[in-house]
Amino acid sequence: MANPVRPGEKTLDFDPGDRAEAGLTFIGRIRTPWSRGDCPKNIRLARDSGQPAHIEMDTAYLDGLTGLEPGRALILIYWMDRARRDLILQSPGHVNGPRGTFAIRSPNRPNTLALSTVVLTGIDPATGRLDIDAIDCFDQTPLVDLRPWLPTIDVPPALQDKLG
Amino acid sequence: MANPVRPGEKTLDFDPGDRAEAGLTFIGRIRTPWSRGDCPKNIRLARDSGQPAHIEMDTAYLDGLTGLEPGRALILIYWMDRARRDLILQSPGHVNGPRGTFAIRSPNRPNTLALSTVVLTGIDPATGRLDIDAIDCFDQTPLVDLRPWLPTIDVPPALQDKLG
Repeated sequence: MANPVRPGEKTLDFDPGDRAEAGLTFIGRIRTPWSRGDCPKNIRLARDSGQPAHIEMDTAYLDGLTGLEPGRALILIYWMDRARRDLILQSPGHVNGPRGTFAIRSPNRPNTLALSTVVLTGIDPATGRLDIDAIDCFDQTPLVDLRPWLPTIDVPPALQDKLG
Repeated sequence: MANPVRPGEKTLDFDPGDRAEAGLTFIGRIRTPWSRGDCPKNIRLARDSGQPAHIEMDTAYLDGLTGLEPGRALILIYWMDRARRDLILQSPGHVNGPRGTFAIRSPNRPNTLALSTVVLTGIDPATGRLDIDAIDCFDQTPLVDLRPWLPTIDVPPALQDKLG
């Protein structure tokens, strides 16, 4: 548990990691220029940095890339393996007062999954290298899933018409 | 492994469920009118049905709801516990020829996580009941996470201006 608890924050009286009910496997690693101390706090800031990133897929899963093409928007699901799982009220620097973990996008949460929508800029199906425009995680962060971004699933219904 | 393999489909020679590298805990259950046979294939069809749904949060996590208000768009992450984890090429009925699992939104994937963006229509912080507009999963599907939908993270950069 690397990150300290700030004033107003609250932890659970158990570690959700001790209550595993399903197992995740890692399908690859995300390669980035970032480590603790210089990692952008969100994907907008990662994009602003001008630094691209790439994915190294586990070669067992190469067939799963069939049909993916550069230019597609993808949702990445990655596992923030250095975040806390027991923080349930949090006081991030940019908000006033503590917020519930499920009301913010902090990587600290019972299941330390992160989600970002990225642009696939290149793909090598033979090696499983996927180039992406940017990402906001440490180098070697485990990748759990990737899938096409689809407005009918991934945009609130009231906003879908604006994207038509 | 409930679902049969169709012509052109391919399975891995291992079950990703046997290679767990991180553990998920369930933070609640999604209550829906759906079971095998009548479940909408995606959230657009679930919305078209006119049937709402709700979440029953595990009461251990109630503090995590602090700050959530009706009207917000939320991303739900849920665990499709009856899907296959070993299908790597798939032939869904609506596409021609097999596609890689990571090029489609099928619930059958190495980590059987599903994602949908829903609208929070009601919240009871005392019981942990969250009402939502619709969802495309069986009754009692385990919930893994919920978080606010944010266009800067969840919309491809080229489309963000259209939502401004």
